Amino acid sequence: MKKCKLVRVLFQPDGMEVFVPAGTLLSRAASAAGRAVEMPCGGMGTCGKCRVVVSGIASEPDSIERERLSQEELASGIRLACRTTAIGEVSITIPEANRSMVQKILSQGVLRDYALMSGVNKIYCELSPPSLDDEHAEFERLAGYLETREIKLKPNLAVLRSLSSIIRASNYKVTAVVHCNELIGIEQGNTVNKCLGVAYDLGSTTIVGYMMDLNTGEELATSSVMNPQAVYGDDLVSRISFATTQDDGAHILQSSAIDALNRIARDLAEISGMSLENVYKATLVGNTCMTHLLLGIDVSSLGQSPYVPTTTNDITLSAREIGLEFCPEAKIVVLPGIAGFVGSDTVGVLLASMHKDNGHTRLAVDIGTNGEMALMRDGRLYVCSAAAGPAFEGAGISSGMRGAPGAIDSVTIGEDVRITTIHNKRPIGICGSGLVDAVAQMLDAGIIDESGRMISPSEAGHLPQALRARLIETQRGVEFVLAANGESGTGTVITLTSGDIRHLQLAKGSIHAAIQTLIATAGATDEMLDQILLAGAFGNYIRVESAIRIGLIPAIDVENVVSIGNAAGAGARLALLSEREMQRARELAAKAEHLELAVSPQYQMELMERMMFPAGAAGAPIK
Amino acid sequence: MKKCKLVRVLFQPDGMEVFVPAGTLLSRAASAAGRAVEMPCGGMGTCGKCRVVVSGIASEPDSIERERLSQEELASGIRLACRTTAIGEVSITIPEANRSMVQKILSQGVLRDYALMSGVNKIYCELSPPSLDDEHAEFERLAGYLETREIKLKPNLAVLRSLSSIIRASNYKVTAVVHCNELIGIEQGNTVNKCLGVAYDLGSTTIVGYMMDLNTGEELATSSVMNPQAVYGDDLVSRISFATTQDDGAHILQSSAIDALNRIARDLAEISGMSLENVYKATLVGNTCMTHLLLGIDVSSLGQSPYVPTTTNDITLSAREIGLEFCPEAKIVVLPGIAGFVGSDTVGVLLASMHKDNGHTRLAVDIGTNGEMALMRDGRLYVCSAAAGPAFEGAGISSGMRGAPGAIDSVTIGEDVRITTIHNKRPIGICGSGLVDAVAQMLDAGIIDESGRMISPSEAGHLPQALRARLIETQRGVEFVLAANGESGTGTVITLTSGDIRHLQLAKGSIHAAIQTLIATAGATDEMLDQILLAGAFGNYIRVESAIRIGLIPAIDVENVVSIGNAAGAGARLALLSEREMQRARELAAKAEHLELAVSPQYQMELMERMMFPAGAAGAPIK
Repeated sequence: MKKCKLVRVLFQPDGMEVFVPAGTLLSRAASAAGRAVEMPCGGMGTCGKCRVVVSGIASEPDSIERERLSQEELASGIRLACRTTAIGEVSITIPEANRSMVQKILSQGVLRDYALMSGVNKIYCELSPPSLDDEHAEFERLAGYLETREIKLKPNLAVLRSLSSIIRASNYKVTAVVHCNELIGIEQGNTVNKCLGVAYDLGSTTIVGYMMDLNTGEELATSSVMNPQAVYGDDLVSRISFATTQDDGAHILQSSAIDALNRIARDLAEISGMSLENVYKATLVGNTCMTHLLLGIDVSSLGQSPYVPTTTNDITLSAREIGLEFCPEAKIVVLPGIAGFVGSDTVGVLLASMHKDNGHTRLAVDIGTNGEMALMRDGRLYVCSAAAGPAFEGAGISSGMRGAPGAIDSVTIGEDVRITTIHNKRPIGICGSGLVDAVAQMLDAGIIDESGRMISPSEAGHLPQALRARLIETQRGVEFVLAANGESGTGTVITLTSGDIRHLQLAKGSIHAAIQTLIATAGATDEMLDQILLAGAFGNYIRVESAIRIGLIPAIDVENVVSIGNAAGAGARLALLSEREMQRARELAAKAEHLELAVSPQYQMELMERMMFPAGAAGAPIK
Repeated sequence: MKKCKLVRVLFQPDGMEVFVPAGTLLSRAASAAGRAVEMPCGGMGTCGKCRVVVSGIASEPDSIERERLSQEELASGIRLACRTTAIGEVSITIPEANRSMVQKILSQGVLRDYALMSGVNKIYCELSPPSLDDEHAEFERLAGYLETREIKLKPNLAVLRSLSSIIRASNYKVTAVVHCNELIGIEQGNTVNKCLGVAYDLGSTTIVGYMMDLNTGEELATSSVMNPQAVYGDDLVSRISFATTQDDGAHILQSSAIDALNRIARDLAEISGMSLENVYKATLVGNTCMTHLLLGIDVSSLGQSPYVPTTTNDITLSAREIGLEFCPEAKIVVLPGIAGFVGSDTVGVLLASMHKDNGHTRLAVDIGTNGEMALMRDGRLYVCSAAAGPAFEGAGISSGMRGAPGAIDSVTIGEDVRITTIHNKRPIGICGSGLVDAVAQMLDAGIIDESGRMISPSEAGHLPQALRARLIETQRGVEFVLAANGESGTGTVITLTSGDIRHLQLAKGSIHAAIQTLIATAGATDEMLDQILLAGAFGNYIRVESAIRIGLIPAIDVENVVSIGNAAGAGARLALLSEREMQRARELAAKAEHLELAVSPQYQMELMERMMFPAGAAGAPIK
């Protein structure tokens, strides 16, 4: 066996420690210790956001660190976790601002009607023991008993291996766990009332899990964690690159996702007071890249045009095969996808919200790191995805942050600026919904014009005094102050820059252009839209008026814009609880017509147009 | 990790060496080195047949060795391999007589008509590469192509993992390997003409493998090895005991069987010049204990009354799951069994020889370590098994041996005794067919009477001089000399003792009693028997007249007794080549009515009666 020196890495102030091979990056060690560091650039050393304070025996600063960090910083032990390795024992302090934080997570999402038929069936059996007059094999004995229940039992080798000893130990009184006629478990005594399933929404940023009672359909617990893959790259492109260029990269990403799914599972068990060995089925939705990585499928084709996945089929495997800590033969079902960038998460949204054609023209939009949208009209279903970029998750925005405590989540501009923050903490940055709100209000106040240009202090004569004072000129150009250094939780001023506005324009432009392309392809117009469904956390927290004001979505009656919460997760739960819904998911995936925007001239044209902000409400601009 | 000191064990004269943990039994080390030692007693130290010459650092002789070995033997380094462990480096010589030898193996067995439809299908596909106008996922691209061939392709996760890279590397020209609609392999370019299967007969003594071309049904190669599990016990009871009482015993037996299957596979590949990665399906028959051990299923219930197995169902798994060196997703199919001691090998015999009811009353008998027999009459099928004991394989007989070179395989008694041996070597012992022959001839010559008593020299006045001289009295009682010490290959006289005759009586009595019980249960008589089919090696080499003479089988017209060779292996080949035959195997297994002889008063009565030898042909006895 290859020798490998292990060194101790200590995390302060709580003293958590891990042992890692000498030469391990501190960012990796932090991840291993459950202390993920923010690395929006994916560990390239370009963003400088992974600053940590290091003492002990670490690698010498490399050229990138020397460029990014000042002499003073280096002298005081500040290093980039993505560039520094542990040579011997080291002690690390991660500044609070750079820790991957728990987010404001939306894991509700209303379940619609469905037929409870998960496919998992537990049956208590009192068998007659064998004798020289009745020498039926144990499995056939059980199968004979279940035949009277209309179950034609099929064996599963892993269960057979210990079947005989379990049946004997329980004196021929056992509970059979059957999934679609297959014997996936055998338990001593009567355990029919413990029959659980877990539905997962494997997002690139957040992973949510729901524990459901398969006997009743009841939701027993919900839990979520940040996707630990984020330490290897914030966006999909960085992760595909990590998977395909780093030694063992795909495997590292896979294990890290599986660890997170198991962590959620243990949490669900703790909350519900149930045991994971009674979980017999799990469903999972996620974008194509996430599910490919999870299943160990090569993602290199997703990293280059024309971005085709290996498969869009639904995949079923056992918990044992993938290392999930459920009943070993539990069925893990990954829902079908549609295309390289329209995955099973979108199918989950469709299943939860567009499972029937109700005659209306409906648009569903799910904005995350990417934006996916679907339009149903006249019985046809069109889908596409747009690379919105992570602006709505705070990335690329100078004071941007995720929806965590202290994030500015709403902005109102009147005589002055009023802000609210998540958990009412002192503001430390701005999240997606706050950004949309701020820009909408700034448009209405005339601080930004339709082209996206922020006015200079000298042009601000029409503004109230307090607002005028918020326009400042720096080397970055004009900036608008949302929170002065005295108010903020960081001690530094929180602003929106002209560059931030441009970032938002690009992101919202690509989303809206994609929506318009869908509408045009379906032969419709904005006026024909009966309803817009906003899925996901962003869709839930956003102020609809602001989204319309900045031109993120078509300007329809606000009452017809509905937030449907984590619809992808709701779809995963429906497929978990009902085989019929799973079949419907397959049908929806097959029915969906995917538009490839990269080759759509319509989209290119729309993109130019939708980058602009809409004109304000009649006579409203520039008060 | 637990530390473990490895020591070198050297085998002379060829210098083969292995490294084993200090404290390993020499018999185990020999097995690991592919140098199996005969241990008919299963390593209990009771038979003393595993004598080896040892030098180096071995354990001290224990009480059993001191009892079995003389001071002189111990002084000259002779030890029992089943009692001695390697403490440090040791050198071992195994006397030729104690080596597990390659046997005279029957691996023919005529194939009957069948419909070639193995379920494995290779299809060469020239796919159109993806583009921005055609973004179908790789799997769906392939599935679309195959849909035109009436194949509704289902994914296999392990194949999906590398599907994309293989398709791309071969420029979208690939061969899909499909088993019953499942994609079990993907290969670059056109490889449709390489489509192989392997059929195994996993006997407790011998394992035979057949490589078949699944495109043509042609047999490409045959190979066999001794079952290496024999070093852990000759018979099933010893092996069940080893599996259930030794640490990791079941796993050791499982690995040793899998190693042997792989060894055969490599041999088949070498003989045929083919590659094992082109093997996509294998079938396997064996007795219930063998197949349970192979599949890792608990065998403890087979070791105690009422001897019920865990399952008699057929089991399919992948080569990868069990560690067979074929295409990883190749389907390994274990045929269905019938009862604890009537396994899939018997189903193989039925499939090869009793697949149709031709209106005749037919009996099939397969004699190995156990005897299994089946009777078909009026559309019903009865089966049972009898513990014949290994007498017909030479065990328990003073000069007994397996059908290896130098074994006496036929005996003719006229004025004197004439013998033949396998490969015409000088005789070193007697095998099953030789034993049956010898006893039949001794009965006809009046050397043995109907009760099985051997006459004493003083009663032999009626015999020719040469024969009289062969009757000797020793401390074991009366013995009959088959080969004098001058003639034999061992330098010592080869005899049959009175005890040997008793052993044979018990073995043949239990077989014949079982046959008679079957016949009676079916409401038939010997006269109604239209045909007797003798399966297996013993059935092939035995002289039918002699088998009838000693009362092993019912006395019907010799022309109606047919040797059908390795019918179990033929059944495995039929199931390999034809899904329809596999379905028939399931039907035969379900149709068979199993008689439990242990609770049959009829059998007990027959056993008493059939222990006797039949009266000779009219007026023939005592020439």
